[in-house]
Amino acid sequence: MHIATRSSPYARWRSLPLGTAAITDGFWRRRQAINRGVSIRHGWRMLEQSGNINNLRLAVGNGEGCYRGPVFMDSDVYKWLEAAASDLAIRPDAELEQQVDELIDLLTAVQMPDGYVNSYYQVNKPTQRWTNLDHDHELYCAGHLFEAAVAHRRATGKDTLFEVATRFADHIDSVFGPGRRDGAPGHPEIELALVELYRECGETRYLDLASFFVDQRGKGRMRGHGLWGPQYHQDRVPVREAMVVEGHAVRQLYLTAGATDVYLETGDRTLLAAMERLWEDMAFRKAHVIGGFGAQPDGEAFGPAYDLTSDHCYCETCAAIAAMMWNWRMLLATGHARYADLLERSLYNGFLSGVSLDGARYFYVNVLQSRGGIERPEWYGCACCPPNVMRQMALVGHYALSSDDAGVQVHQFMPLEANVEMSAVGTVKLRIATDYPWDGHVRIVIEQTPATAWTLAVRIPGWCNQATLCVNGEPVDGAGARGRYGRIERSWCTGDVAELSIPLPVRLIEPHPRIDAIRGCVAIERGPLVYCLEAVDQQTGAELLDLRIDAEAPTEAVWRGDVLDGVMAVLAPGAVVDPIDWDDVLYRMVGAQTTSLRNRAMLMAVPYYAWANRGAHPMRVWIPSL
Amino acid sequence: MHIATRSSPYARWRSLPLGTAAITDGFWRRRQAINRGVSIRHGWRMLEQSGNINNLRLAVGNGEGCYRGPVFMDSDVYKWLEAAASDLAIRPDAELEQQVDELIDLLTAVQMPDGYVNSYYQVNKPTQRWTNLDHDHELYCAGHLFEAAVAHRRATGKDTLFEVATRFADHIDSVFGPGRRDGAPGHPEIELALVELYRECGETRYLDLASFFVDQRGKGRMRGHGLWGPQYHQDRVPVREAMVVEGHAVRQLYLTAGATDVYLETGDRTLLAAMERLWEDMAFRKAHVIGGFGAQPDGEAFGPAYDLTSDHCYCETCAAIAAMMWNWRMLLATGHARYADLLERSLYNGFLSGVSLDGARYFYVNVLQSRGGIERPEWYGCACCPPNVMRQMALVGHYALSSDDAGVQVHQFMPLEANVEMSAVGTVKLRIATDYPWDGHVRIVIEQTPATAWTLAVRIPGWCNQATLCVNGEPVDGAGARGRYGRIERSWCTGDVAELSIPLPVRLIEPHPRIDAIRGCVAIERGPLVYCLEAVDQQTGAELLDLRIDAEAPTEAVWRGDVLDGVMAVLAPGAVVDPIDWDDVLYRMVGAQTTSLRNRAMLMAVPYYAWANRGAHPMRVWIPSL
Repeated sequence: MHIATRSSPYARWRSLPLGTAAITDGFWRRRQAINRGVSIRHGWRMLEQSGNINNLRLAVGNGEGCYRGPVFMDSDVYKWLEAAASDLAIRPDAELEQQVDELIDLLTAVQMPDGYVNSYYQVNKPTQRWTNLDHDHELYCAGHLFEAAVAHRRATGKDTLFEVATRFADHIDSVFGPGRRDGAPGHPEIELALVELYRECGETRYLDLASFFVDQRGKGRMRGHGLWGPQYHQDRVPVREAMVVEGHAVRQLYLTAGATDVYLETGDRTLLAAMERLWEDMAFRKAHVIGGFGAQPDGEAFGPAYDLTSDHCYCETCAAIAAMMWNWRMLLATGHARYADLLERSLYNGFLSGVSLDGARYFYVNVLQSRGGIERPEWYGCACCPPNVMRQMALVGHYALSSDDAGVQVHQFMPLEANVEMSAVGTVKLRIATDYPWDGHVRIVIEQTPATAWTLAVRIPGWCNQATLCVNGEPVDGAGARGRYGRIERSWCTGDVAELSIPLPVRLIEPHPRIDAIRGCVAIERGPLVYCLEAVDQQTGAELLDLRIDAEAPTEAVWRGDVLDGVMAVLAPGAVVDPIDWDDVLYRMVGAQTTSLRNRAMLMAVPYYAWANRGAHPMRVWIPSL
Repeated sequence: MHIATRSSPYARWRSLPLGTAAITDGFWRRRQAINRGVSIRHGWRMLEQSGNINNLRLAVGNGEGCYRGPVFMDSDVYKWLEAAASDLAIRPDAELEQQVDELIDLLTAVQMPDGYVNSYYQVNKPTQRWTNLDHDHELYCAGHLFEAAVAHRRATGKDTLFEVATRFADHIDSVFGPGRRDGAPGHPEIELALVELYRECGETRYLDLASFFVDQRGKGRMRGHGLWGPQYHQDRVPVREAMVVEGHAVRQLYLTAGATDVYLETGDRTLLAAMERLWEDMAFRKAHVIGGFGAQPDGEAFGPAYDLTSDHCYCETCAAIAAMMWNWRMLLATGHARYADLLERSLYNGFLSGVSLDGARYFYVNVLQSRGGIERPEWYGCACCPPNVMRQMALVGHYALSSDDAGVQVHQFMPLEANVEMSAVGTVKLRIATDYPWDGHVRIVIEQTPATAWTLAVRIPGWCNQATLCVNGEPVDGAGARGRYGRIERSWCTGDVAELSIPLPVRLIEPHPRIDAIRGCVAIERGPLVYCLEAVDQQTGAELLDLRIDAEAPTEAVWRGDVLDGVMAVLAPGAVVDPIDWDDVLYRMVGAQTTSLRNRAMLMAVPYYAWANRGAHPMRVWIPSL
């Protein structure tokens, strides 16, 4: 899922090695503790219960009954493995490690002598490998195996799963490639995984195969009708010629993440130019305010530009994760803060809403408006999202920092300790303290540093105003411009303190005038958090549909330790529309009557990520304004 | 599809016999000519091509290949038959009648010795009759057979198809009913058809069986998950306890039409009370402005109250037809103009949009907004709508008039000649002249009348203001109140003229404040017509998404004989929003910048029914206001 330091010659910045930045406290530490304590355990039970593990046992001849679930059941096992391994990298746990080892033993047994691994085909269609690349997900599952294997090796130093992965990769490389067989996976994923495999072991065949799969698209090979036509699989045009993000959102975003990985290793700027173009189409025309992507339920797909409904949207949790993966790679490739900004938007909103506060229930679809009746189930028949949330949660600290030859970059703000290696300077040890996202003060303490000067770059979010960056209490001139990185180049001493202060006023947000579905509405934001009204918090007794916000009145942020495990709530003045005038009519002549406001009301908003944790109450992010 | 005069003791008003009111000219005459000249012929070709006819031939052993299409393919044949028969009732045509006779010969041959007719079961599952009432549509198909048979007998006087129908009805009655087998069809339709069969021949077993099927619902027998749960089939609660319309819209509306038919014959007021309650839920909370129903694509279903999007809606053509059928029955049951008003709204908008101006292409889904790319196909794999349009079009004159013991009621305004029988008075011959919907003058000439006094009642549409009703040029006091029937009781003389004058100003319409999707928008209406903006008519060169209407400026209606076979277009002043301020942002702080208006523009709107006849241009009914 992440990008290693040891390669990536065309990366402007590089990821830190897995496990070198550990979150110590605060918002995300709590989420990670629940991820380990609840989600990963719950995930294992669900994989047993849903048949994923049994499918693997069937492949070695000791399972029960028949293969169960969709063709990509193995991939959920791999994502769970990647989550467990990534978590072990931060906090060792002998019991979890043993469970992981036993699962790897099973996978080793499943692997065929020629390296092939796929329980669906081994059990159901042993003689039909690679006959349905568009829909049967063999290469997709392989990609998740590779990602898990890389994470496992990096976390534990063991080669057990990595050997399974490279044997399978070698087999795939013997089947596909120039002079061998043409073809591309209906669901991208293997591209970025092959690049990670290459980064881990230096085998250039893996990078070449990743490039090959990227280049195979757009040959009109993947057929299908209507929504499931070539655009569904990003096969309408070659990747370098694509002008818009389209089709199945997770496929599109895993593909662009993989293509960006190929750029990072090969430096092919025609790829980067296409990625920047596609990113702008996504960010400026097809993004929900929660950092959710794929507006359209039909085909789990990107919709047309500006077609961003609140209630009939999709915003699959996996798509938010895929977008974060891509944004991280674009950030490393370019050093532009806009990618970290959008990553942050998904992280705190459209991704985090994917899991309940207790860690045991999951959203697949993340709507921005509910008329009631929507809650997170504990699992899904198509359970791609829950284990994806688990691996993302275990890795969240990874998005905080990066490094280059003579600098450290701070992207996301969370309390952590890290040893960061700058290749030309040496290693710095730093500690970050913050109560972000509730508070905008971020204190970066240099605990150990080489004598040579190096540069600390700190992201000033694009959404903030009047941020200040200080060193040892002295403001750094010109370093507070939003949407950029505030840079401090100096000879650092142990004990130096850099301090970022971001005011966190409540912000009222309006949508692009081409977005029909939320015309006349505003959203509430504070810091990186998007807020929502949940009916259970409103004191008016009125229907949520009848509430209006006064977009010109002052709002107030109030800490509510008693609500939703503790949140900064927002109080916003508004009013209740009286629908009595409309009792027996849905449409009427303009100006026939004025709709009356019954009374003023104080609306209470809570962070979007926390909604639907107190029952299936009506909710809305976009609030009609008076 | 319609209700006969000879029965219905609890009807306040009664339908005219089939064929007694013939449209002579104008808007609907032209549509009917195309229906006969193009649509019905096209329909036959499609039934041959899609396998419907071959499925019947397979059932008698001389078809080719395998059964093709969904389980309800026979019903499309029956709807086509009903269309052809209803058209023959107005205008004889030897060739069409022969084609009908040959098809009936085939159906007669298909019928099993015990009366059963269903090509899907006879070909594919001969031993499994009635094993899947929820999904396999045997009773639904039977209902369409009965409707076709009644229409055919009424139109031609022949018993050939009617005998097939009654034999099948007798068979069904031997299987289902009290003391026999329980059960209800997953897709209602047979209920209203059995009542029609009863009306036609007086066999009370058919009425009893219709009541039985209505009463069988709500016993939780129909299972299924999520959207396809009991509510999908209207099986969640008994019909008399239902508070809301829900689930699959066509199923709901055929059911309510059938339940209303049962009321009309039995006088069971608990049924009527439920129907009035459900109608109000539909009309006041779940109706699109075009008179379209079933907002939700998933499950082709009614959505929650006020959830009425323009672009992601469904509004199946069959649902508009089903709503018209139900409204007609409610009108006859109660004499309330609101049912005729809503019928008119569907007739001129959400129904009529279902067919192209040339009669050869059909919408299944009727959206109120397109971003481009939407056109009518010539047929569907699930082709319920096209033949439903054909039978509705052939019968449209039927919705114009009704009668009671001593009166004639005029509901829909179209040029026609009719002989209307009032049971206590005698027969009146009248002629109606009008250029409706383009013009609001309706001239009703009494060409022959009994000497006894009788009452002429004329609907004053709920949407109009300042209508006047005159007799021989003299205004009738108090008869112009909108949303009621203007009544003239007198001793009529031959040559008397009643004249209705409805001013037809352009009306700008606003939506209920709980409808999120179209907040801040207005729709344009004139007379019974809802208008839309189609990109091809706009002279600004701007994107349709950037147009705004000035809801306070005067509009103008202009006859455009050169556009869409001749329409009254509406010119409305507006402006173009300049999206340049928004080039690289989708969301921004309220008040950060004012969105600029590039320039004023004159918008041109055309009737909604006529859209998508000049290519797949962007279109919208609801227009954002300045």
